[in-house]
Amino acid sequence: MKHHVITGGAGFIGANLAASLLGDGHRVLAVDDLSRGRIETIMHLTDNPNFDFRQADCADRLAFDAVLDQVEGITDVWHMAANSDIPAGIADPRIDLHQTFLTTFTILEVMKARSIPNLHFASSSAIYGDFGETIIHEDIGPLLPISNYGAMKLASEAQIRAAVEAFLPRADVFRFPNVIGVPATHGVILDFVHKLRNTPKELQVLGNGTQQKAYLHVDDLVRAMRHIARIPGRYQLFNIGPTDDGVTVRSIAETVRDAASPSASIVFGEDARGWVGDVPRFRYSVDRLIGTGWKPTLSSQEAVQRAVAEIVWQEMGR
Amino acid sequence: MKHHVITGGAGFIGANLAASLLGDGHRVLAVDDLSRGRIETIMHLTDNPNFDFRQADCADRLAFDAVLDQVEGITDVWHMAANSDIPAGIADPRIDLHQTFLTTFTILEVMKARSIPNLHFASSSAIYGDFGETIIHEDIGPLLPISNYGAMKLASEAQIRAAVEAFLPRADVFRFPNVIGVPATHGVILDFVHKLRNTPKELQVLGNGTQQKAYLHVDDLVRAMRHIARIPGRYQLFNIGPTDDGVTVRSIAETVRDAASPSASIVFGEDARGWVGDVPRFRYSVDRLIGTGWKPTLSSQEAVQRAVAEIVWQEMGR
Repeated sequence: MKHHVITGGAGFIGANLAASLLGDGHRVLAVDDLSRGRIETIMHLTDNPNFDFRQADCADRLAFDAVLDQVEGITDVWHMAANSDIPAGIADPRIDLHQTFLTTFTILEVMKARSIPNLHFASSSAIYGDFGETIIHEDIGPLLPISNYGAMKLASEAQIRAAVEAFLPRADVFRFPNVIGVPATHGVILDFVHKLRNTPKELQVLGNGTQQKAYLHVDDLVRAMRHIARIPGRYQLFNIGPTDDGVTVRSIAETVRDAASPSASIVFGEDARGWVGDVPRFRYSVDRLIGTGWKPTLSSQEAVQRAVAEIVWQEMGR
Repeated sequence: MKHHVITGGAGFIGANLAASLLGDGHRVLAVDDLSRGRIETIMHLTDNPNFDFRQADCADRLAFDAVLDQVEGITDVWHMAANSDIPAGIADPRIDLHQTFLTTFTILEVMKARSIPNLHFASSSAIYGDFGETIIHEDIGPLLPISNYGAMKLASEAQIRAAVEAFLPRADVFRFPNVIGVPATHGVILDFVHKLRNTPKELQVLGNGTQQKAYLHVDDLVRAMRHIARIPGRYQLFNIGPTDDGVTVRSIAETVRDAASPSASIVFGEDARGWVGDVPRFRYSVDRLIGTGWKPTLSSQEAVQRAVAEIVWQEMGR
């Protein structure tokens, strides 16, 4: 059994990953600065003797080192910590600089100093920017991210690749799609549920509802990451996502409305884009990952349906 | 006539660019932290009333703002400041973080706050990593830089692209080849000249001498940058280089030996790579730039011959 550190370990994906690793008998140390992650997310794991949690900012070399001084035998770091609030990063790029890139930079320094061999990194489809109708595979170029979030994920990938050249024995880079499920902390489904809780008769949608995106349920995402981590090699780079072309914002709005407030009307905006940095259409190839034997269990539409049910339960208790 | 800021303005390329802009009657403010740039580099420009110099670290927001508070009407920033010592960046990645990436990050913040419209950025062929025999055009992928220097140049490009999406009216990204000429501050020719000054009878070469690289003379580089800056558009991304496949380290060593110490013998190492982060072979397409009407005046071989003569004169006075 291995000993894993998960940064962003009290966040949405970190908490699901921790539960998965613990379920197979591994030891897990979750680290989170609790700027966005919440301690409630991992309360159900704290009875497990193989689980531990420490509050720390892993972009702070001294703080992160102090945490790792207290544990032994770390073999793997799963770097899930990042600023997940893209509009906040556009308003103040220092948020993405610190939380999305300098975390990665500092983790690499610490892994080098401590000879920790395996890094698993949550990158993003946002590194690609806007390719329009072109299908996006891992080797496509040029890489022109249109948000600071995407820029700092690409910066992180670059620094990790250079680290593999210089000292790091193994790195996996996961280019995440939109991931949904619980505990939800942000995202379009949670936004819609909150809006309907506040105004049960009307759901206002940014953009014209034609934006189409692929969604993966967090259970499938965790399976994909752990699958990739078992593939031999020094540097593994994979798009992760469902195999379909995704669902529209209109369809998501209707699914949320049906579950949370069936009598509400839905009002759309006029722009194809919802906000700066939002990519209106996105065709994502996961052929490389499928070729290794992984398959999603849910389509985008099925993932949305399950996540809507989970999030309505989380937020409204029904 | 425009008012230009050149960061790294006391460095090799910055000083040549300053002279070119001044020659056309533009105003130039050179900014340099003098960590690698030298004040001697620009002494010959200080008599020009259109030229000014300030010592400042442009990754330091307060310091860079204080410099710009003293001037008016800045239209263009030419961001040439970076850590040019790749092995130093591998030994301590914080050097590249600060000098190569956080400079870019801070300059973008300052340009946003001051509504400065035009950024011209010295990126690098190092963002591409090792493509072996594949010809490298601007749209190739995946981008897997193998040095921290290349990683932080790619990080800079990504942040600039996101800035163009959010607020910046115009950015040019120049992917530099190896650039040679005077005032030389680093690089293989200068290394060889120094070695022969110390041991006139023998020139020890890292690697087996078969590494082949394209070299551009700094005069051609400055012409290319200024040519690209006149192309309309919001975001211009160009490889810059000669049109040939380059020259070998062996050929460079022989050219330096012939100019500096004709009776010396040359001793090669055994590895195809000279150091970590060095790419052994590199085929660089400049078709996009050629298609816009620019042409280099010198081949790689001619550039090496001219630069060797210039650098031997600079270092040995003959």
